[in-house]
Amino acid sequence: MLQKTDLMVDQIAALGRGDTTARLLAEAALSRAQVLGDLNAFVALDPVKVLAAADASDARRAAGSTLGPLDGIPIAVKDNYLTADYPTTACSDARPLEPAGVDATLVARLRRGGAVIFGKTNMHEWAYGATNTTSSFGLTRNPHNPDHITGGSSGGSAVAVAGGIVTAALGSDTGGSIRIPASACGIYGFKPTYGRASRHGVLPLSWSLDAPGPLAASLDDIAVLLSCLLGEDAGDAATRGSPPFRDKAPLSRPARLVNLSGPGLERSDEVDAAVAAALQGAQGCTVETRTLPGMRRFFGAWETILHCEATAYHQSLLAKQGAGFSPVTRAHLEAGQHLSAQELLRAQQVRAEFCALLSTGLGDWDALVLPTLPVPAPAITSDWQEFGGRRETTQDSMTWFCWLGNLAGLPAVTLPCGLSSTGLPIGLMLMGRPGEDERLLQIAKRVDSGGLDTR
Amino acid sequence: MLQKTDLMVDQIAALGRGDTTARLLAEAALSRAQVLGDLNAFVALDPVKVLAAADASDARRAAGSTLGPLDGIPIAVKDNYLTADYPTTACSDARPLEPAGVDATLVARLRRGGAVIFGKTNMHEWAYGATNTTSSFGLTRNPHNPDHITGGSSGGSAVAVAGGIVTAALGSDTGGSIRIPASACGIYGFKPTYGRASRHGVLPLSWSLDAPGPLAASLDDIAVLLSCLLGEDAGDAATRGSPPFRDKAPLSRPARLVNLSGPGLERSDEVDAAVAAALQGAQGCTVETRTLPGMRRFFGAWETILHCEATAYHQSLLAKQGAGFSPVTRAHLEAGQHLSAQELLRAQQVRAEFCALLSTGLGDWDALVLPTLPVPAPAITSDWQEFGGRRETTQDSMTWFCWLGNLAGLPAVTLPCGLSSTGLPIGLMLMGRPGEDERLLQIAKRVDSGGLDTR
Repeated sequence: MLQKTDLMVDQIAALGRGDTTARLLAEAALSRAQVLGDLNAFVALDPVKVLAAADASDARRAAGSTLGPLDGIPIAVKDNYLTADYPTTACSDARPLEPAGVDATLVARLRRGGAVIFGKTNMHEWAYGATNTTSSFGLTRNPHNPDHITGGSSGGSAVAVAGGIVTAALGSDTGGSIRIPASACGIYGFKPTYGRASRHGVLPLSWSLDAPGPLAASLDDIAVLLSCLLGEDAGDAATRGSPPFRDKAPLSRPARLVNLSGPGLERSDEVDAAVAAALQGAQGCTVETRTLPGMRRFFGAWETILHCEATAYHQSLLAKQGAGFSPVTRAHLEAGQHLSAQELLRAQQVRAEFCALLSTGLGDWDALVLPTLPVPAPAITSDWQEFGGRRETTQDSMTWFCWLGNLAGLPAVTLPCGLSSTGLPIGLMLMGRPGEDERLLQIAKRVDSGGLDTR
Repeated sequence: MLQKTDLMVDQIAALGRGDTTARLLAEAALSRAQVLGDLNAFVALDPVKVLAAADASDARRAAGSTLGPLDGIPIAVKDNYLTADYPTTACSDARPLEPAGVDATLVARLRRGGAVIFGKTNMHEWAYGATNTTSSFGLTRNPHNPDHITGGSSGGSAVAVAGGIVTAALGSDTGGSIRIPASACGIYGFKPTYGRASRHGVLPLSWSLDAPGPLAASLDDIAVLLSCLLGEDAGDAATRGSPPFRDKAPLSRPARLVNLSGPGLERSDEVDAAVAAALQGAQGCTVETRTLPGMRRFFGAWETILHCEATAYHQSLLAKQGAGFSPVTRAHLEAGQHLSAQELLRAQQVRAEFCALLSTGLGDWDALVLPTLPVPAPAITSDWQEFGGRRETTQDSMTWFCWLGNLAGLPAVTLPCGLSSTGLPIGLMLMGRPGEDERLLQIAKRVDSGGLDTR
């Protein structure tokens, strides 16, 4: 089992006290990355660049001019974020035409905050899948059991944190790609409200669903990261008018949680029991259970929008470098070419209906509750999952609950809530109202039991 | 030539002074409607209902309990608004399945304000055209010259006002359908910001472009109507959070007008001269001329969105009652079935680009200026128009400038600004920033010369 590392807030405190240096943190992370090399978390990691950035941070600190709380903290970045100092491949052999020497806005914000960009992490090819088993760099392996998947598409970022290499990483989430691997690997992942985190410089999968965000080892760490990352950016029109993240005072009244269930929201018994136990232990919350109808129709809308937008984005690359895409990704993209305008419009209308249902059809609520995944991380060799009377592909099992947050643009967070009988992590998901990322984080703290001891 | 009638504000004042009654106004309107019957403005008008509503208004006034400024004012309604007391046909033989006894929200607001609903007006079939020559009730004729078209699709509403039958009417506007006939008939028409006027109960043409609004004989009349009509309605999600219309104090600084020109924005010399003269006479405005590039591509996006959404709405009716649609409308709807999801997505992206261009790419501006139409109202027999080196269909000539306001969701108003050498009205269009309907009206008053003497 993996050793427990410090949290990011502990690293920040230790740097502040002078008990460690950015160089020491970077060296420890590099050495840990080497130890865990078989998990295949990184697709690019240059010790020279990492140590140079760490030394620059130490020099700033010595001169009394640190750039903020993240100064000197190593943070890993998913390989679909543009980075000035590493290539960006989205783990595909079909290589995008990238602007050279450019950082995605969120990477630039980390750098301006003094963070040490700690390489690029492995991902599901083009983020177009939730297992992380399709990647031009090979699959990622779960730190809790290397014969099991990490989930994806931000699988490498989850391994980097769950393995104790770094305390934070960036991911992106179109149907759960931050939350799925965070849950499968036993850590925390936060998908902000659509439009609060800039997508500028993040290679798109589906522009009306995509949300970049952090993975970390505690909710306090998540709060520090969101404070650096969120807010308006001229490079992404969707962020217009969007405020920075302000860690608010806790809610002064009980948080109203609505626990969702019904056809299409099935889960395995042990996942269900773990979530129920976590809710039982939650402080300052009322919990009500509600059935959400029509899930398969809403899921179909998410899938149609995803396929149409992904195909639109990849069309020209597919024409030029079709052979560079893996066969399964190519098949998805070709399917997206045959959808009609009428099908897309219907999906967009169903989406509006879904947003209205969540907004006003469930009464007053502060957060919606679901498991993050219906099952613990599946074995790499298993293509099908059975749970709650269902038999679903592993791919569909991974996005089973998470797509809801993308279709409605809600902020969503996953927290670890125990281990399965086989020792694999189980995650609980909370989704907030659009724009209420701060409140969601406060509520998550009431539900959180403090993470897995075994990390 | 038509006789000049009072304005609505004059009628309101006269009712208030006791110089007239709702019954007298209604009788005069009914008699004028009969005199102008050949112009074919009305498709349903029941004197019994009109006089009963007028008498009820007079009774309220006698009892000292009027419902507001519109109490007793006859107002005509386009035949795509649901009305509890008249059938709604959209001037098509393919009859929609209507809920019985229901008013569209805007009709209900007029009734709650005491207005006398004055029948249903002729329109271009399903609002899917801008000439008003295709209608199951026959074409409408221009009060200024009955051999010329009225423009459409709210042609009957424009005739009802321009002919002096009523002082106000409701129309709807997807690519100019309020502004086009208002301009062609020499009156005022106002398309509110998308989402400030409820579409609930207005048979849709294209739900992301449609905006209902008023036609009237002065800007003061328009202000009274907007104060009754605009604002949030639970029946139309797009109105969520939208404020009522508040007639604001005039701007305390010069209004910055941007006069648009360039390829795709050509107009006839006499239209250009009339607009230039009106701008010359404008008080308290600065005028700058700017070229707006890419017009044909933006127009293509508007057309694609229009066709896709119209087809989606009409699909089931088309399958059941295809023979009820006129051949040209049927052809439009069938074309919409063959567009792909990829084409629609591209159009939606181009639309976003267009909104961004108007929002930030033209510097600071308070209103954009264009003619409403590139030519005066065409002869009924003429299928093509020539202007500024262009040769365009009469249909495309009618929407030539107006679609811009729908694609970007802007508030837009047309004001009469003179007569052509052939005695036909010329209109000037001003478009405001989204949500700034109040400011747009104030600016329009600075440009307005008070209407055509010949109305």
